[in-house]
Amino acid sequence: MSVWQAEVRVWLKPSVFDPQGAAVQQALRSLGHDGVEEVRIGKSMVLTVRAETAAEAEDQVRAMCEELLCNPVMETYTFTVRPLEEASVGGRAR
Amino acid sequence: MSVWQAEVRVWLKPSVFDPQGAAVQQALRSLGHDGVEEVRIGKSMVLTVRAETAAEAEDQVRAMCEELLCNPVMETYTFTVRPLEEASVGGRAR
Repeated sequence: MSVWQAEVRVWLKPSVFDPQGAAVQQALRSLGHDGVEEVRIGKSMVLTVRAETAAEAEDQVRAMCEELLCNPVMETYTFTVRPLEEASVGGRAR
Repeated sequence: MSVWQAEVRVWLKPSVFDPQGAAVQQALRSLGHDGVEEVRIGKSMVLTVRAETAAEAEDQVRAMCEELLCNPVMETYTFTVRPLEEASVGGRAR
């Protein structure tokens, strides 16, 4: 049984208004960052998963996205899976 | 003036407890995903920025992270900048 690190990213669909992104854009502009044209904010989730193979880990992560992590009405998701040794994601101490 | 797409990812520092991640892990386990060992949740922000060069765009984004997007007490950030034409990020219709 190997350990895998999956990174799931969940975004509002492009057609859905992102009020949090709009608020951040306005705040950045009020700080003088006039070059900011658009801000969209999503979630990034790093999961440590035990599975025999990468394909099995991917199947597990896809199921998790569809059952819990992503709201398919408003959101889309993408994910990557890699062996934990190779993984290096911001904010993880390795 | 070119248009750049920056993706900023903000994470709780590894030493900081992530209650949202812990709640998601527990929910995943209660759905039968016993292979999940850890979940950490961060923010992912996609910014469209106008700047002359990639270096200038990076300087702008770094300033935004330090002034607003990241709380340096509890969080760390990483970011990437690339020309908008090449950029392809989940949830962005391009």
